[in-house]
Amino acid sequence: MKKVLAINSGSSSFKYKLFSFPSEEVIAKGGAERVGMPNSIFKIKLANGNEYIKNMSIPTQRDAVSLLIDCLKKYHVVEKLSEIKGVGHRIVNGGEVFPNSVVIDNHNLHKLERIAQLAPLHNGPETEGIKAFMSILPNVRQVAVFDTAYHHTLDAVHYLYSIPYKYYKDYAVRKYGAHGTSVRYVAPRAAKMMHKNINIARLIVCHLGSGSSITAVKNGKSYDTSMGFSPLTGVTMGTRSGDFDPSALQYLMHKTGMDIDQAIDMLNQESGLLGISGVSSDMRDLIESDEPRAKLARRIYINRVVRYVGAYAAEMDGVDGIVFTAGIGEHDPGIRAGIMSSLKYLGLKADFEANRTDGEKFISKPDSKVKALIVPTNEEVMIAREVIKLTR
Amino acid sequence: MKKVLAINSGSSSFKYKLFSFPSEEVIAKGGAERVGMPNSIFKIKLANGNEYIKNMSIPTQRDAVSLLIDCLKKYHVVEKLSEIKGVGHRIVNGGEVFPNSVVIDNHNLHKLERIAQLAPLHNGPETEGIKAFMSILPNVRQVAVFDTAYHHTLDAVHYLYSIPYKYYKDYAVRKYGAHGTSVRYVAPRAAKMMHKNINIARLIVCHLGSGSSITAVKNGKSYDTSMGFSPLTGVTMGTRSGDFDPSALQYLMHKTGMDIDQAIDMLNQESGLLGISGVSSDMRDLIESDEPRAKLARRIYINRVVRYVGAYAAEMDGVDGIVFTAGIGEHDPGIRAGIMSSLKYLGLKADFEANRTDGEKFISKPDSKVKALIVPTNEEVMIAREVIKLTR
Repeated sequence: MKKVLAINSGSSSFKYKLFSFPSEEVIAKGGAERVGMPNSIFKIKLANGNEYIKNMSIPTQRDAVSLLIDCLKKYHVVEKLSEIKGVGHRIVNGGEVFPNSVVIDNHNLHKLERIAQLAPLHNGPETEGIKAFMSILPNVRQVAVFDTAYHHTLDAVHYLYSIPYKYYKDYAVRKYGAHGTSVRYVAPRAAKMMHKNINIARLIVCHLGSGSSITAVKNGKSYDTSMGFSPLTGVTMGTRSGDFDPSALQYLMHKTGMDIDQAIDMLNQESGLLGISGVSSDMRDLIESDEPRAKLARRIYINRVVRYVGAYAAEMDGVDGIVFTAGIGEHDPGIRAGIMSSLKYLGLKADFEANRTDGEKFISKPDSKVKALIVPTNEEVMIAREVIKLTR
Repeated sequence: MKKVLAINSGSSSFKYKLFSFPSEEVIAKGGAERVGMPNSIFKIKLANGNEYIKNMSIPTQRDAVSLLIDCLKKYHVVEKLSEIKGVGHRIVNGGEVFPNSVVIDNHNLHKLERIAQLAPLHNGPETEGIKAFMSILPNVRQVAVFDTAYHHTLDAVHYLYSIPYKYYKDYAVRKYGAHGTSVRYVAPRAAKMMHKNINIARLIVCHLGSGSSITAVKNGKSYDTSMGFSPLTGVTMGTRSGDFDPSALQYLMHKTGMDIDQAIDMLNQESGLLGISGVSSDMRDLIESDEPRAKLARRIYINRVVRYVGAYAAEMDGVDGIVFTAGIGEHDPGIRAGIMSSLKYLGLKADFEANRTDGEKFISKPDSKVKALIVPTNEEVMIAREVIKLTR
């Protein structure tokens, strides 16, 4: 029995799941929050349902990793460290240099640090997370799994921006996309449910969470995706703006005195559902709210997803299935219904009754030409599978 | 017989057409170029086909207007100035304060100057153009016709960005769109050709020129449009980037040392077809070029139009007609064919034979569920008609 950790590191936190292979059972999960800040928290939940929450000082990510290992031993999830065959780390942006998951050695760690500037908000903390695990578990294989890797199949027509070509050649400015690990899990699962060979299917995967993106999957490969150079663009998100006119940014900078870093921070952290509604970045709060702009934010969110679904249906000259996944996609029937209501022209007959509840299933009628499905995502198991692949 | 001038002013140029009403015949047209620069040029072409080109010093727009009036008299197009009933000026951005064309008095001129910052590249020179005509023709009515006016029917869901709402309230940052005067001409004409009542039709107008935009027209009104706060966004254009990730702009600014104004200038003037190809901003040059990136630029252009056509078909839950207009839309069969080839899923059966030549006509097969048409635009006659409306 092999054990594999899947890790998602933030700037002052990480989440983990410990998988047992080949069963893919989750034998422990949890995370560290507010690392290096007052009131740090560490959580561990075991397969038997017991959960332990520790409020204690966790000065560094390294301390958090130590705590995780101590807990795994203490609660007898792991008896010897050698049972852990590898640790998989989610990395948002692998640039053009990482088309696949890689085992982290010093060479790859150096490459990773060099491209960290492509996605400073994410790659920096993620690389720090890898280093913390390397120092505590020096004999365990560390694997980097890239959210961008799945999108390496994009054609230049789709990944190039219409700017001077030298900015692509000299600075690698292009579309990278994200959520690839999620789509890689969800798309084949949807094709299977549809009894379609994924190699001849056209799917549109709506990964709708606090970060949201739409991906066109053609013949089993990512064909186009709504996030761009960064995860800022595409559809409206919890606090991120999605697509925005750079000239309007210039205008706002001159009006308010913001510099470019402050302006981009505003687009990343104060925009999206939060910015429109003034209420919350969380879709669940918007449902509860009586504020008219909360309803407006939901309508805008639906519209932006519809735009991309329509765009990708056109790019692929049609679509066989539309797949909803992630927090909002799996759990917000109103958003799904709003999106499906605009897609009758594709031959989608929504099953609004089935749509009312969650779970992996069809939410289109049996005679619907284009299918709609809910497929709960599982990025962590995909990360763990990549580790198994690279530790054979 | 009324005579009306339609004017399109740039920073060092203007173009004009003199219409005779009610026939709407063009009795003179031409323009001034390189005003205030060495080697200024003034052109006038008469209804009889005679064309006169003058190479002479034209220090100011006011001098250019004087020259125009002198020429109109000299060539007996106009005997007395009182024959000119009005002058219509194309203004790119009327903001939220100008939902319709207006006669320019001091009050409106002041309002126009106040919103000039919304579109500094265009509104500034246009306002200067109006002033030049006012000083030379003080007794002739000057009318401002706004490219944004047609898009005043957009719903907040479509015109709001997903940024903090205060930036809309305090600084009017929203989608304004452009090319409205063109769409206002083309859409009803297309509906008539389709024997459809425009009030129940869903059209997508592809205004494809050196500036390009896509507009969804639902029930005779603009429903959504691809240009945004500024004419920078949407599809790829001659030198403009179309949609671009603001985070990538931040990244490039830090890498190259450009400030925000230089970066936006780069997106406006060095990007688009020119930026990708390195060859030319003119689609005709790209057809001739052997440079692989010239072909790539054409493919990217087609893709971006397809994206928006698909997005708007989804927003309207279907489409009845797709209309091609403006320089590229009217004269580039390869671009039209490329776009139509991706729209079979909508029920569009392209007539590639008909598509080979230009002119107002259908380029879809008679049994095509969704129609495709070429409709040559005529923004100038729409501007002149607005003048007639406001001088009754």
